[in-house]
Amino acid sequence: MKKLAFLIAFVGFFSCKEQPKETVETSIREVQKEEVKKPEETFGIAIHGGAGTILKKNMTPEKETAYKAKLEEAIKVGHAILKNGGTSMDAVQKTINVLEDSPLFNAGKGAVFTSKGTNEMDASIMDGNSLNAGAVAGVTTVKNPINLAREVMVNSPHVMLSGKGAEQFAKERDLELVNPSYFFTEDRMKSLERVKEVEKAKEANKTVAFYDSVIKDAKFGTVGCVALDIRGNLAAGTSTGGMTNKKWNRIGDSPIIGAGTYANNATCAVSSTGWGEYFIRGMVAYDISALVEYKGLSLKDATKEVIQKKLTKLGGTGGVVAIDSKGNVSMDFNTAGMYRATMNADGELTVGIYKDEE
Amino acid sequence: MKKLAFLIAFVGFFSCKEQPKETVETSIREVQKEEVKKPEETFGIAIHGGAGTILKKNMTPEKETAYKAKLEEAIKVGHAILKNGGTSMDAVQKTINVLEDSPLFNAGKGAVFTSKGTNEMDASIMDGNSLNAGAVAGVTTVKNPINLAREVMVNSPHVMLSGKGAEQFAKERDLELVNPSYFFTEDRMKSLERVKEVEKAKEANKTVAFYDSVIKDAKFGTVGCVALDIRGNLAAGTSTGGMTNKKWNRIGDSPIIGAGTYANNATCAVSSTGWGEYFIRGMVAYDISALVEYKGLSLKDATKEVIQKKLTKLGGTGGVVAIDSKGNVSMDFNTAGMYRATMNADGELTVGIYKDEE
Repeated sequence: MKKLAFLIAFVGFFSCKEQPKETVETSIREVQKEEVKKPEETFGIAIHGGAGTILKKNMTPEKETAYKAKLEEAIKVGHAILKNGGTSMDAVQKTINVLEDSPLFNAGKGAVFTSKGTNEMDASIMDGNSLNAGAVAGVTTVKNPINLAREVMVNSPHVMLSGKGAEQFAKERDLELVNPSYFFTEDRMKSLERVKEVEKAKEANKTVAFYDSVIKDAKFGTVGCVALDIRGNLAAGTSTGGMTNKKWNRIGDSPIIGAGTYANNATCAVSSTGWGEYFIRGMVAYDISALVEYKGLSLKDATKEVIQKKLTKLGGTGGVVAIDSKGNVSMDFNTAGMYRATMNADGELTVGIYKDEE
Repeated sequence: MKKLAFLIAFVGFFSCKEQPKETVETSIREVQKEEVKKPEETFGIAIHGGAGTILKKNMTPEKETAYKAKLEEAIKVGHAILKNGGTSMDAVQKTINVLEDSPLFNAGKGAVFTSKGTNEMDASIMDGNSLNAGAVAGVTTVKNPINLAREVMVNSPHVMLSGKGAEQFAKERDLELVNPSYFFTEDRMKSLERVKEVEKAKEANKTVAFYDSVIKDAKFGTVGCVALDIRGNLAAGTSTGGMTNKKWNRIGDSPIIGAGTYANNATCAVSSTGWGEYFIRGMVAYDISALVEYKGLSLKDATKEVIQKKLTKLGGTGGVVAIDSKGNVSMDFNTAGMYRATMNADGELTVGIYKDEE
């Protein structure tokens, strides 16, 4: 009996892990060879850089150009990986790295500030092939939180690590650490000051609302990516600084598998952005997958049902990017805008910000 | 436009909160009055105290009696609340408090030790009526983590808090705090020592498996409760010390809404216990609800599908207790045993430990 239990634990341990790198690379090469014989295989990628009250009238042409250029740069990194027969997991991770390294988005370098003036980042990644996943919450010194999320998935027996422990693990795994001052940006500090002013005024007036429009929008800008590779493997990842002025080591939806991130080869890959509390309560990413699996909805109908009906009814705002195993992409949001881009196997690129754009 | 955004944020804020206490109490009284006219209204409650390799041959009669007595004591607290017209949220919380205060279960007083010899507790609670939820991860000084989870739900704009921040919030909300030494129990310390010995032996042998049967079972004992009140409101809650020897501030499934805990009046209330990593990847609690909602499965068939098929296929072990809006209870597990009890509106009590028991 003990031997059996050990065997089960042992098998469970391996089923919980990604394959060793060598094996994965070998299989990539094998599939690449196979790929030549199967030109019908498709691939695709979609990204978001946050949803919110993004209105054309509040944008400068320079800012718009900067956002679009960075979205294009990021998605092309992932697209190149997929085109060369790389994995969807690599495409998701490397694409998110570009967005994390830019001060434009609320993730990595551009992470928003907590109430204490620190930066606490969350991220998660999921492999639709193995249904394995990794997530981190509240890290302050990890340059690319999405890399740590993947490291948790591949090289720990856990799915989710947090705070100091997650950073200790990052150190043990030799991930790139930076001084917390790396995450300081003038723009995000100004946002914090603005939010604190509003909060102070509210407290003086003894009104109870914690959020107003300033605060509400101060939590958007999360980045995410979903991808399908030529082997039919789906992957999804999400990375964020959370919400400006967040308190008490709040954890949002981004590091929650099923809320912020979900991928399953049988259905779809989803990355969320928006008011995290509602995305957790609505299990948004997994709910889209469940509607595809259990009700047979198309990806488009499933994302519409969850974002435009269920999330909206709950009172939540935000959006998702999603891709299914046929390469169909759906990007849905109930806010004025969502930074987003898609690229398909033919190299067709779309980049959008506002609601009315294709 | 700004005014509109403010209004949306304001409405969103309230939709995110429980009603003020006075209102809830008034409505309880109102419904109680109504209740006299509706004797057909039913209610019910079910609890678990963890699933694992619980075998009769390894149990002493004294230990068995102690477990059964505590399960009975706990469920009767919740049952009395429901019988007197109280809310399912109160029943869930107060029942879990009894289990948290006992050293027998891996929650509160009996929480297992982390690798560092500390106790880090996780808990979550969800209200099936409002779909509101609260959760905490990695708290070390809060006597009853489930109380803090409910406090997060009711008195913060967030769903999930963690670590020091969650404790700061507990202090601000005047929750009962204890010295971390309160959570010291001889039994759990012995478990940690045993697990560390196994780990050391493994490292010396350079085998890669992190888990063996000792370690595997050292993480069970999570407690949970689901309840239906006479108003048809469902609630679910889960509280745990996590797994013995856990590292890097690991977060398991217990504080993850949709994995460890889920409640929705339209479907069911679910509390999970088991190998948390698999419950996160499988979105176990929400998946049961999704099967009921989208595929029209009965609660019994939905729990069976998720635990015996999907979770087992993934390699995960554990179980759930669940109740639907008609008071149907389902308790399913793929381990040798699960500490559990149920009580219905007629006061019929069942208490079980092993697989073959009713």
